[in-house]
Amino acid sequence: MLVVGELINSSRKAVAQAIANRNKAYIQDLARKQAAAGAAIIDVNCGTSIGEEEKVMAWLVDTVQEVVDVPLCIDSPSAEALATGLAAHKGQAMINSITAEKERWAEVLPLVKEYKAKVIALCMDDGGMPESVADRLRVADKLVSGLVAAGVPADDIYLDPLIKPLGVNSQYGVEALESVAALKEKYPEVHSICGLSNVSYGLPERRLLNRAFMVMCLTRGMDAFILDPLDIQLMGLLRAATALAGQDEFCLEYIAAARAGKIKA
Amino acid sequence: MLVVGELINSSRKAVAQAIANRNKAYIQDLARKQAAAGAAIIDVNCGTSIGEEEKVMAWLVDTVQEVVDVPLCIDSPSAEALATGLAAHKGQAMINSITAEKERWAEVLPLVKEYKAKVIALCMDDGGMPESVADRLRVADKLVSGLVAAGVPADDIYLDPLIKPLGVNSQYGVEALESVAALKEKYPEVHSICGLSNVSYGLPERRLLNRAFMVMCLTRGMDAFILDPLDIQLMGLLRAATALAGQDEFCLEYIAAARAGKIKA
Repeated sequence: MLVVGELINSSRKAVAQAIANRNKAYIQDLARKQAAAGAAIIDVNCGTSIGEEEKVMAWLVDTVQEVVDVPLCIDSPSAEALATGLAAHKGQAMINSITAEKERWAEVLPLVKEYKAKVIALCMDDGGMPESVADRLRVADKLVSGLVAAGVPADDIYLDPLIKPLGVNSQYGVEALESVAALKEKYPEVHSICGLSNVSYGLPERRLLNRAFMVMCLTRGMDAFILDPLDIQLMGLLRAATALAGQDEFCLEYIAAARAGKIKA
Repeated sequence: MLVVGELINSSRKAVAQAIANRNKAYIQDLARKQAAAGAAIIDVNCGTSIGEEEKVMAWLVDTVQEVVDVPLCIDSPSAEALATGLAAHKGQAMINSITAEKERWAEVLPLVKEYKAKVIALCMDDGGMPESVADRLRVADKLVSGLVAAGVPADDIYLDPLIKPLGVNSQYGVEALESVAALKEKYPEVHSICGLSNVSYGLPERRLLNRAFMVMCLTRGMDAFILDPLDIQLMGLLRAATALAGQDEFCLEYIAAARAGKIKA
């Protein structure tokens, strides 16, 4: 199971402020804590640094890689910011994200190839957000075949089915879970990933929904999550569900995490 | 989603003592709390009352039904104790449990019929504990066809696939989940149920495993659980997962539970 730590994102106020002040200590602390909690990749997003995102992304990558050994997920709607982040990055980065939209595809594919990066591929094209399981499969087909044709190994591709808020439609959870299972069946060699928080948008006690949804996605075959690794309940459930899914021989990782106090019931 | 509250069980020391002392207040408090937390059925087990289980079961049923409106699940290895419990019970009870073992089947089936009870049917026969998904399906077939032939409505049957400890074999979780999915596919009209605690036997932070396993079973189609309804994290995940599984129109029950403070992230 792959955990991408989501906390260094300038949509969070304290992070935006730390970035604005070039407060390395704050950012580095957040990086260290996420890696220690089990994040194997750390997402970096500075989308609020309007007009200077390219420069700030390189600073952010340098700042984080100074203190942690894990690779980063360079996260931006701007292809230029992705490029400066990737240029600054040491080791194999992850790109967040490519889509099947013509313009985005044309901008991001060359970066995936140049940097031999892992890539999150959102199941959307110029038709907008997917409306059904079939819609996601149709777009996933474009993404996977296009990426593989460009020489990207299946193992570096992370399909994101795009999760919509359950509060808007009571069947959106089912639609998402069926999409996860369908993607897994059709592309067993390709990974799938999602962020957890969209599903609970507008509903109370959101972390409960995020946690349950993570376990449900994992049960249907999802193997990577963009999440808050400092949510100890969430990480405990992730490690428990990984073991229950038969992916932790003799429960050794689960037991070690419990002994180290990293998970708690 | 059906919750059977498991706390009134004499394998728990405090309950055994309360039963021995005929401490109605303690038992009734446990009944009230479980019903308030969302148990739709309350399990009653007095297996430690050796030599007087029949008498004690009737007392236990009376004691609990004095204070809660929900039906009870009469839980005993003794057919005689099941009989006295069922005779004392008002409304439609649940029986825990019948199996495909010749002797148990012969003793319990008449009670299921006489009291038109719901029944938990364990997927085991005289060959012992099931060793595979196929084994469970084979035994489930005997159970379902036998019960239906005896006039028991499918809606009153709760198949228990029998959960074995993950600590013993890292694939027991997968085997259990595949069994749940296979039973659901083969018998869509029949319910499935399990207790949660066996899966985590011998492992640390057991409640984490129990919670994750509940969500995973629910995801594969299980619709009833014997659990501790006073575990607020567990009940929150159950309500969240029920909503995410598309079984809570407009998330009304989830939202109501959150507003009432019954669930908390």
